[in-house]
Amino acid sequence: MQNWKVIVSYDGTDYSGWQVQPGRATIQGELQAALGRVTGESPLPQGSGRTDAGVHALGQVASFGLAAPIPADNLRRALNRTLPAAIRVVETMVVPAAFHARHSTVAKTYEYRVFLERRRTGPDEADPSYAVVCPPFLARYVYSYPWPLDFGELERAAASFVGTHDFLSFAATDPDETTRSAADNEEDMTTLGAVRTVYRSWWEQKQTDEGTMLFYRVRGNGFLHHMVRNLVGTMLDVGRGYRRAEEIPGMIAAKARAAAGPTAPPQGLFLHSVEYPE
Amino acid sequence: MQNWKVIVSYDGTDYSGWQVQPGRATIQGELQAALGRVTGESPLPQGSGRTDAGVHALGQVASFGLAAPIPADNLRRALNRTLPAAIRVVETMVVPAAFHARHSTVAKTYEYRVFLERRRTGPDEADPSYAVVCPPFLARYVYSYPWPLDFGELERAAASFVGTHDFLSFAATDPDETTRSAADNEEDMTTLGAVRTVYRSWWEQKQTDEGTMLFYRVRGNGFLHHMVRNLVGTMLDVGRGYRRAEEIPGMIAAKARAAAGPTAPPQGLFLHSVEYPE
Repeated sequence: MQNWKVIVSYDGTDYSGWQVQPGRATIQGELQAALGRVTGESPLPQGSGRTDAGVHALGQVASFGLAAPIPADNLRRALNRTLPAAIRVVETMVVPAAFHARHSTVAKTYEYRVFLERRRTGPDEADPSYAVVCPPFLARYVYSYPWPLDFGELERAAASFVGTHDFLSFAATDPDETTRSAADNEEDMTTLGAVRTVYRSWWEQKQTDEGTMLFYRVRGNGFLHHMVRNLVGTMLDVGRGYRRAEEIPGMIAAKARAAAGPTAPPQGLFLHSVEYPE
Repeated sequence: MQNWKVIVSYDGTDYSGWQVQPGRATIQGELQAALGRVTGESPLPQGSGRTDAGVHALGQVASFGLAAPIPADNLRRALNRTLPAAIRVVETMVVPAAFHARHSTVAKTYEYRVFLERRRTGPDEADPSYAVVCPPFLARYVYSYPWPLDFGELERAAASFVGTHDFLSFAATDPDETTRSAADNEEDMTTLGAVRTVYRSWWEQKQTDEGTMLFYRVRGNGFLHHMVRNLVGTMLDVGRGYRRAEEIPGMIAAKARAAAGPTAPPQGLFLHSVEYPE
């Protein structure tokens, strides 16, 4: 029996998230079925964590065992031949038996993509050129944001999340969601509650042929369910002028979901990468 | 009654092409329904031509009449608010009554996008780095091509289509398709048969973060049904070494579909732009 680590990229739009659910197409389910077609074995790949319906991944990591020996690159190519084009195996490698995609994680990075529909604001708002249309080829992969944003405020808001905090104000609140969050981070939830450490949290601006894109990236030791989307929804309220960056420490201290901003939509979110020891 | 011209961009993946069909989601049908919701009038927008299922548009043009007066930018914004994100109205303008999106066309440009899965070939083929995975976020919008291509041969092949030729060898052959092709260019088919003029035909190569992309663009006075996809399928056979660019004049002269190469898949094809007099 060999222990495998795979890096997987996917377009989550047409899937009910990572985790296997009866009667629904999921990434984990597609991967398990593809393994069955390629190797005759159907281990359930363990992901580094779940992603919700509509959320994408650039570098999700999963692990599983296979009895049959197979060259790593042959496994990768065979899986890609049988998987839908929306799911691609980027890398396959044999790892020590102790490796587990979720338990061994030391850090994760998420990315959130925003497309700016406003080129400018002010007295010339009536000028049709002030508005930019989100290209249909981007719509599945961005939050197309209709209001003007103050980039400096976004940067200040992002910086205020860095450090070790109780992020309860930014965690999903409905019972089902809390359960899911707990299941996602079993050990953490027992010892840490909603305490997480954010190592880095920053925005970048990029001019593309289609318009202005904003990229938020956040690297931390773990994330609560909906946490990144709630950080983003809150920061966008700050960038828009509804809230001020200075209010964020108070939102964190409140330990109440209602103290923070709305949940940004799933289609802008990408699991960027997962880090392991050494 | 005002005559309107609109420029529309769409992701054709989830639609049964441009043209209204009972019980199916089409671009023309979505646009007509959106006009109904916005204005209370439901004219059938006349496109510059049909696009097939899975084919996209950067700048499809459609025309229709509306009795109610409405500022052009208000119409654009209201349509985009009610249309699916896969269909965007890029521009709206009132035009003279004589304008008709199909009959007034003087030239069209199509674009075909190819993603190269091979970084290199040769004795190091066993090295996993020779292969590049097509990102799932591009898969809907490219032909992900698994074999190495000779770019110089592609360029030579593209040049050999320029000029006025009978393109019957590159037209769809099944009865249904021929009917559709005729309907698409009624006047042309009567007077010209399969004769079309290609003004420009060329390939470009672009390095992106994800890998190497090839863009084929062709500008002409009109195109037969499946013509661009058949030109591309033939050129890719040349680039791959199955055929030679020098054989293309013979394929054209044969006036037989079987003389040319295969039909490239729809997802790489974009109606780029449509030109009108003055």
